[in-house]
Amino acid sequence: MFSLYNQSLALLSDLYELTMASAYWKSQMAEDEAVFHLFFRKKPFEGSYAIAAGLESVIAYLQNFRFDLSDLDYLATLKGSEEVPLFEEPFLRYLEQLRFTCDVDAVREGEVVFPYEPLVRVKGPILEAQLIESALLTLVNYPTLIATKAARICSAAGEDQVLEFGLRRAPGIDGAMSATRASYIGGCHATSNTLAGKLLKIPVAGTHAHSWVMAFETEQEAFETYARAMPHNSLFLVDTYDSIQGVKRAIEVGKTLRSQNRPFLGIRLDSGDIAQLSQKARLLLDEAGFHQAKIVASNELNETLIAELKKKGAQVAVWGVGTHLVTGQTQAALDGVYKISAIKRRGASSWSDCLKLSEQQKKVSDPGILQVRRSIGKGGEFTKDLIYDERNTLSLPEGRDLLLPIFRAGSAVYTSPSLDEMRSYAAKQLQSFRGSEMPYPVEMEATLEKNKQALIEVARCNR
Amino acid sequence: MFSLYNQSLALLSDLYELTMASAYWKSQMAEDEAVFHLFFRKKPFEGSYAIAAGLESVIAYLQNFRFDLSDLDYLATLKGSEEVPLFEEPFLRYLEQLRFTCDVDAVREGEVVFPYEPLVRVKGPILEAQLIESALLTLVNYPTLIATKAARICSAAGEDQVLEFGLRRAPGIDGAMSATRASYIGGCHATSNTLAGKLLKIPVAGTHAHSWVMAFETEQEAFETYARAMPHNSLFLVDTYDSIQGVKRAIEVGKTLRSQNRPFLGIRLDSGDIAQLSQKARLLLDEAGFHQAKIVASNELNETLIAELKKKGAQVAVWGVGTHLVTGQTQAALDGVYKISAIKRRGASSWSDCLKLSEQQKKVSDPGILQVRRSIGKGGEFTKDLIYDERNTLSLPEGRDLLLPIFRAGSAVYTSPSLDEMRSYAAKQLQSFRGSEMPYPVEMEATLEKNKQALIEVARCNR
Repeated sequence: MFSLYNQSLALLSDLYELTMASAYWKSQMAEDEAVFHLFFRKKPFEGSYAIAAGLESVIAYLQNFRFDLSDLDYLATLKGSEEVPLFEEPFLRYLEQLRFTCDVDAVREGEVVFPYEPLVRVKGPILEAQLIESALLTLVNYPTLIATKAARICSAAGEDQVLEFGLRRAPGIDGAMSATRASYIGGCHATSNTLAGKLLKIPVAGTHAHSWVMAFETEQEAFETYARAMPHNSLFLVDTYDSIQGVKRAIEVGKTLRSQNRPFLGIRLDSGDIAQLSQKARLLLDEAGFHQAKIVASNELNETLIAELKKKGAQVAVWGVGTHLVTGQTQAALDGVYKISAIKRRGASSWSDCLKLSEQQKKVSDPGILQVRRSIGKGGEFTKDLIYDERNTLSLPEGRDLLLPIFRAGSAVYTSPSLDEMRSYAAKQLQSFRGSEMPYPVEMEATLEKNKQALIEVARCNR
Repeated sequence: MFSLYNQSLALLSDLYELTMASAYWKSQMAEDEAVFHLFFRKKPFEGSYAIAAGLESVIAYLQNFRFDLSDLDYLATLKGSEEVPLFEEPFLRYLEQLRFTCDVDAVREGEVVFPYEPLVRVKGPILEAQLIESALLTLVNYPTLIATKAARICSAAGEDQVLEFGLRRAPGIDGAMSATRASYIGGCHATSNTLAGKLLKIPVAGTHAHSWVMAFETEQEAFETYARAMPHNSLFLVDTYDSIQGVKRAIEVGKTLRSQNRPFLGIRLDSGDIAQLSQKARLLLDEAGFHQAKIVASNELNETLIAELKKKGAQVAVWGVGTHLVTGQTQAALDGVYKISAIKRRGASSWSDCLKLSEQQKKVSDPGILQVRRSIGKGGEFTKDLIYDERNTLSLPEGRDLLLPIFRAGSAVYTSPSLDEMRSYAAKQLQSFRGSEMPYPVEMEATLEKNKQALIEVARCNR
């Protein structure tokens, strides 16, 4: 993917992953085996699902996972209390040799997922599985949030096209790139972000801004000049001074284009009452015979506004969505977490399952080595998700397991499909999900639930 | 700064900047001179100020601004309507030769700024000034938002320390890096993001997570093992099972450390009623003679919660803030825009000022070549900001101008201070601002205001 992954990202980590790693190493526990799951607790945007994204960059990160000498030199400079070096030299030499050897299972990008379902499962030496926590969360939380937002926006837009226009409001360069990528997986049709077009092969779109119009004495001159210069990109932003006047001027230019046998693509509205303005604009365009000319709308749009505008009869064919799409806006982060659920100490013959207690029942983590079985109805609709422990597969329903093998003993065994395939996959899954019973049932398999309750009792006694 | 800037970022741009560039080129307007200002309209977080940030990466981006062959090859593949290439070959060859030659003025990173004040001003060939719009907005909007959020959080925390813990909820890798950098400028004391520690030399902090405790049979064993392994980093997360029990166990380990003449640094609370729990914990720590041991609090904190907790008498010395800090949460983006305000056509002897009309008075842009004069009172407090046109400096008050020369004819004439200097600068400015009259007066100089009104009349007639 992005060139960022060519450099060492082993330090892209909360410091506590490294201090814990050091403590595991020092306590001869580095090789103890552990299982961690990455999952979220709350449906984003108070909706009914999320669209998983980010796996391709997780794979790139893990394939390149190693500490380079500059990382170790830096760690050697860190001090604990009393100015004592935080990390011992032999531990740094251990990190130098360290290679990623875990098994990783994960859901596909574009998969429809629900709270508490593992999106990523990591199994292997506890030191390694711990060290990658922060990066995995960074690489999965944000794209999953944005792919979900995109799916919601595209769903509100129905058959209309949705363009992602978020670059200027996106959180940094890589933030912008991830946002564009995730938006595309979630269903957007194109982006304004040209670098994403180049690097990720996502279709790009764009014509001109207000500044183009302002650079001329009159709007008419601006439109005419643009049409002459870019005759195959003739879509005009009409609201620099007055939207309806702008539409009329665009139509004049459209007529000139028509006389040259060139298409007049349409207009863009970027302010005012989009429902009303788009209806007026549609009438004017149709009266002039420009039935094919499209109306694009932008300006702080989101799924709620798009649904309202469509209800009010807005005549918009293409929605440009920026800020709300690339920030999440009403929910600015997916609440994804990464929790340990089982441990096998050196020399132990079996796993000890574990969980984190909490006064809030919802925040008690799930124990074991988890998998998700999705049952599918005759019409292709999802009928139920069952979270189960893969060591207990008795009496499981038919269906498909969502977690796929991604790494085995540190080697990638999975190749990401193309972005277009991810996007189609997400669309297909969403269609199946829309045929499902709501609220959609996600259950915990009975023996897993029993095991969890027993562990809660033990933890409460021990605490 | 970050290695990302070593690659061509000329395409980190909305496509319309490129189609406009092509149209300017085709219309022989590429060399017409223009002035653009980057500013925001709304005070972030319904607060009273913003802290500017992002200039250092703007400089890096502009210094490296050029199209490489892979960029041009990609642009050559883009199609307009009727499958005609969007860009003509001679235009692509023009881009190949293009170098940045504009003048840029900008406010320092760490400057206290207000709505409508230009944060960046670009003056030069319209094609160049236009092409850099999207990237400038991306590189300024997000860091300014986060630096502002950090300043608000640090202000609520008063004398307490604030740690930025946002990596896992940050928007992508570069999003995380920019967030950590901006948080530090805004006043945070350290970060958990170790890569930012290495690359940006920001202090790092961290000890252990719940998973460390869960990897042991008992919490006591977990704390003891950690203290043995990391004796100079002995701060314990106490809420895996029960916070007060956890505090008591941490104190037991603290006693062992004391017997070895090693410091017991403190505890971290990550759930429950932080006000109440921290008071109980403080009592227990003090009773055991651990007056120096600090209480760290985390868990979905923000400036409002910190202020409330402090009001309730929370005994917290260090606040760890993640999601809210790196996403903005209640406001997920700064509404920064980049507007053209003057143009000088080829052969013209003077500038034509311009503005964008809007039904909303607030969205009418300001014309001219702008600067901001800040008047300072005898006590060092800011007394007033005046937005003026630098071509009219008659009857200006004493004070300092906020916009500094950054590029002249495409060459950088400014060297960014160190991050620590930016952070101190922001702290000093905030202190001066806090002595000011509120709401703080930001005014438009009288002749500029008159010019603006006249231009509005002309635009209304022409529209």
